[in-house]
Amino acid sequence: METGRCHEQEQVEVVGKAFVDHYYNLFDNDRSSLASLYQPTSMLTFEGQKIVGTGDISCKLNSLPFGNSKHTISTIDSQPSAYGGGIVVFVSGSLQLPGEEHQLRFSQMFHLIPTQDGSFFVQNDFFRLNYG
Amino acid sequence: METGRCHEQEQVEVVGKAFVDHYYNLFDNDRSSLASLYQPTSMLTFEGQKIVGTGDISCKLNSLPFGNSKHTISTIDSQPSAYGGGIVVFVSGSLQLPGEEHQLRFSQMFHLIPTQDGSFFVQNDFFRLNYG
Repeated sequence: METGRCHEQEQVEVVGKAFVDHYYNLFDNDRSSLASLYQPTSMLTFEGQKIVGTGDISCKLNSLPFGNSKHTISTIDSQPSAYGGGIVVFVSGSLQLPGEEHQLRFSQMFHLIPTQDGSFFVQNDFFRLNYG
Repeated sequence: METGRCHEQEQVEVVGKAFVDHYYNLFDNDRSSLASLYQPTSMLTFEGQKIVGTGDISCKLNSLPFGNSKHTISTIDSQPSAYGGGIVVFVSGSLQLPGEEHQLRFSQMFHLIPTQDGSFFVQNDFFRLNYG
């Protein structure tokens, strides 16, 4: 791998990890703020249910039937996407819900698109629990 | 959802399912032909290992240390991507390997980009086994 591509890949991984840390920190501690990561074009498929746009996605995430959650991340894989400056992030981990003895395993994927202010928003989001 | 978007979503799901059927049929029955689904820009992250380009991806898939495999698909979620005409497909399922008593659970994600001949190729591919 030549230096330029190597550097690009490092940057992609740094952004992917920073996004994942930020996303699950908000999810577990300030879930209503997740809305700031989506835009009107954003799509979420949550356990097979399709939701489009900041408002409906935020509504879905905030109406999940549990208060406190704790995500533990196992793997983060990131690649540059075909969309200029975009990043695809693939996450696996486990989710501890209040009052539940066992953690739930999950996989989630984000397609991040750069914003004009140098940040990223989530264009595509897929969440699935992994049943053993 | 108005009619146009509803139709687009249906088309995206039809393409996503057709691709998934085709991909795992090739994987299980004619693995060397998977090369036809990738291009020089394609990226695969396989259990955390990053591989770029048709040749290296094909080499990786064909050198996996098992002959016959049988994938059973549990869920297919598809969304249009930000890249014109592209489709993001998120798959979960299980993998039966020869001589193994238990199936392995996996998650895989494909970012499909349209080709000039009206087909699609895989630009981004992530594969992870799900450990329980």
